[in-house]
Amino acid sequence: METDANELQRVIGAAAEAAPKLAASTPVERAAWLRAAADALDEAGPELIPLAAKETHLPEAPRLRGELARTTFQLRLFAEVLEDGAFLGATVDHADPEWPMGPRPDIRRTVVPIGPVAVFAASNFPFAFSVAGGDTASALAAGCPVVLKAHPGHPELSTRTGAVLREALAGAGAPAGVFDVIHGVEAGVATVKDARIQAAAFTGSVPGGRALFDIAVSRPVPIPFYGELGSVNPVIVTPGAVKARGTEVAKGFVGSFTLGTGQFCTKPGLVFLPEGHDLSDVLREAVGAVPGQRMLNERIEGGFRSGVGHLREHPSLTVLAAPTDDENLFRPSLFTVRAEDFLAAGEVLRTECFGPASIIVTYAGQGELLKVLDELEPGLTATVHAEDDEVEEVRALLPALTRLAGRLLWNDWPTGVTVSWAQQHGGPYPATTAPTTTSVGTAAIDRFLRPVAFQGFPDTLLPPPVREANPWGVPRRVDGRRD
Amino acid sequence: METDANELQRVIGAAAEAAPKLAASTPVERAAWLRAAADALDEAGPELIPLAAKETHLPEAPRLRGELARTTFQLRLFAEVLEDGAFLGATVDHADPEWPMGPRPDIRRTVVPIGPVAVFAASNFPFAFSVAGGDTASALAAGCPVVLKAHPGHPELSTRTGAVLREALAGAGAPAGVFDVIHGVEAGVATVKDARIQAAAFTGSVPGGRALFDIAVSRPVPIPFYGELGSVNPVIVTPGAVKARGTEVAKGFVGSFTLGTGQFCTKPGLVFLPEGHDLSDVLREAVGAVPGQRMLNERIEGGFRSGVGHLREHPSLTVLAAPTDDENLFRPSLFTVRAEDFLAAGEVLRTECFGPASIIVTYAGQGELLKVLDELEPGLTATVHAEDDEVEEVRALLPALTRLAGRLLWNDWPTGVTVSWAQQHGGPYPATTAPTTTSVGTAAIDRFLRPVAFQGFPDTLLPPPVREANPWGVPRRVDGRRD
Repeated sequence: METDANELQRVIGAAAEAAPKLAASTPVERAAWLRAAADALDEAGPELIPLAAKETHLPEAPRLRGELARTTFQLRLFAEVLEDGAFLGATVDHADPEWPMGPRPDIRRTVVPIGPVAVFAASNFPFAFSVAGGDTASALAAGCPVVLKAHPGHPELSTRTGAVLREALAGAGAPAGVFDVIHGVEAGVATVKDARIQAAAFTGSVPGGRALFDIAVSRPVPIPFYGELGSVNPVIVTPGAVKARGTEVAKGFVGSFTLGTGQFCTKPGLVFLPEGHDLSDVLREAVGAVPGQRMLNERIEGGFRSGVGHLREHPSLTVLAAPTDDENLFRPSLFTVRAEDFLAAGEVLRTECFGPASIIVTYAGQGELLKVLDELEPGLTATVHAEDDEVEEVRALLPALTRLAGRLLWNDWPTGVTVSWAQQHGGPYPATTAPTTTSVGTAAIDRFLRPVAFQGFPDTLLPPPVREANPWGVPRRVDGRRD
Repeated sequence: METDANELQRVIGAAAEAAPKLAASTPVERAAWLRAAADALDEAGPELIPLAAKETHLPEAPRLRGELARTTFQLRLFAEVLEDGAFLGATVDHADPEWPMGPRPDIRRTVVPIGPVAVFAASNFPFAFSVAGGDTASALAAGCPVVLKAHPGHPELSTRTGAVLREALAGAGAPAGVFDVIHGVEAGVATVKDARIQAAAFTGSVPGGRALFDIAVSRPVPIPFYGELGSVNPVIVTPGAVKARGTEVAKGFVGSFTLGTGQFCTKPGLVFLPEGHDLSDVLREAVGAVPGQRMLNERIEGGFRSGVGHLREHPSLTVLAAPTDDENLFRPSLFTVRAEDFLAAGEVLRTECFGPASIIVTYAGQGELLKVLDELEPGLTATVHAEDDEVEEVRALLPALTRLAGRLLWNDWPTGVTVSWAQQHGGPYPATTAPTTTSVGTAAIDRFLRPVAFQGFPDTLLPPPVREANPWGVPRRVDGRRD
């Protein structure tokens, strides 16, 4: 299923035509569109969920039902963001002849949509990071038309979800062209290259994301590229945590790295246990109890077979569990290595292996732990399991952990990514290509907004958020003070 | 004056060592550093201003004195930003078992400094966009060490300003390595390539900025590159404005495009006048009254001679004023062209000519005006001169103008760029390489901050802005509500 060049021109042309209409829409209008989209997707659940299960091999319950609920909640949360109005960043500086650097003109800033956005869907979340997922929700909320490149792992679901979304948006009064779905690598690349596209968002692998990033920044007019790429998600377990509740931690870890057959960008891929821990039997048992599970598709199966094969053969690793897989049912693999051997082994052990595999790194003390942390690439998350009487030891790790990730967890597992006001799903490269941004949570809308200042303008020509009377009642900063 | 490889290693190494210390500093501490820097620079004015005049040929008064005042005001305004605390984006979501997408953990987001920043100084503002200028001020405010690449147009001033700034920062208690100055293209390129550098900021030409942008995004670990490049800054004058106060507008225009010998990134390079306007004599007279002025340096002189030479010879342009220059005293050149010929002439007339030259484009009506605006590249500013009874005609232009620029002006001239909370100095490429950001105004600090979320953390390990008791008293959003 490939979108041909003519159809692609039609889709991008329609998005470009829709852009000024979206820019002229109000946040409250867009909130209604998003809620209508959420309702329509909830209603289509009985059709979409089995389709998702068929194409991705993910279980309908609780996984896919939960993921659709997350997706429609996300659309509704962005409707709240639009009604809240703080995202507009409305700032008013009245003329001030006494301004210390010299007389200040009346100047007022708010944001406008950046323009048509290309969104690349992920394989592993067929709803939440796909057609109607976070990038689409935040771009539409911002007032940007979306050209959605479907993931080839669930093409039929993408087409159907796209149709539901498009119809719901149209039914709620959104302009034509505001959203459409395209298929195929060639069409995706052509979209990123198209001069009418003003930004792109992507969730997927490092090589795929980097290739598209390179295209986006090499255009005659480069555009922002928001790629959420790879992450090893280190987890540190302190001696106190092993002693107080080692079995619970071990079971929690196995649950987390095997969740969704290990196909999460937040899968804990490296777990640091103190040397001499006694959790090997518990870990082996917990891993052994996980049934074989399907992976998303053959390409990902192939990638995992290759990745885990390298780990099995790696001379520095000891196998804790490395079952032979049934033809297409994958059981988790777990390895262990001493910190000094891990350091000596270089890149291969530090690279994300997408699927149900993880590595335990045993460390001799805080000094060695810090040494390894300083060598790791940044990622999306870093986690600590520790006891309350160890906070000072953990405090000493915080600068290293903060360098490493966009989200730090305490006595929890990184595979759950809530959608909320405070969420941060991002991090320095290779976690993302845009470390000052997030792709989950309400702040994701900021990626698709561009500030514009109006100097000395008549009130009637100003965007409503910065008119003197503040007709929309949005939160503002006026003459330096928050109102 | 070139920084050699050993010295560069020392400077970048010191910046990298300073980074965690800066990250551990409080905003209030950094505010004190910035104020100390401002005071020291003000005090050094009698030494620095003559040095700047000698190296840049800009007049001491009012220009360079005013520019230094602007620069130290800017440092002090960022101190206010730090004390205000809103820049921290502190957001607290308490655990919520009833969160609609599934139980929500306790999650709290704030920002951390992105790390060492490379800043490239501009030629045309030896204080305000140079060593102690806006990029330096905002990066230091964010808690990022700065490696400052001096502009070769004012090397001695850069070294002295750097010394004053460094000593003031050290005297106020900032860690060693927080700021240093380097010289030379090779050192600048090596800095952008250095893995320890986490972001870069630049003010200068499109070719220079694009070359550095390309390097920054081609690194194994690409980094954000905040380049403020070129802009033609179109000005639209309506028939009503010509009729009501054409002479005043004409004189204002000449004052603006010749200010600082036309060496402003916000110089109005294209002015749209209605066909049949009667301002040619006034314009010729006003241009003729502008005395010859020095340009910044020989390289910029050469660029201008070449640029204005192309305009003089361009078959579509009519010369309104094109004086022969004294050896190194430059007088303004002004050309005129009909809108349809302007469109037919292509790129050359739409490209920034840095220096005292501008083009008047005469338009036959609003339709033709819109056609030309839709063909222009985006820039930093777009200006309208109109009468109050023409607001509806201008309203119809607003979508086109908003696409074109980060700042829109009404009955004013773009060459003044105030530093304030609402300022926006940026725009889509080629105005900048980062259209969602600004390089002037308080929001410039956001470029150097990276969000981090803390999930389930003990209160004592949280950064103060997101501790339960809000010990710094910063503005926050808690459970979705602004406090």
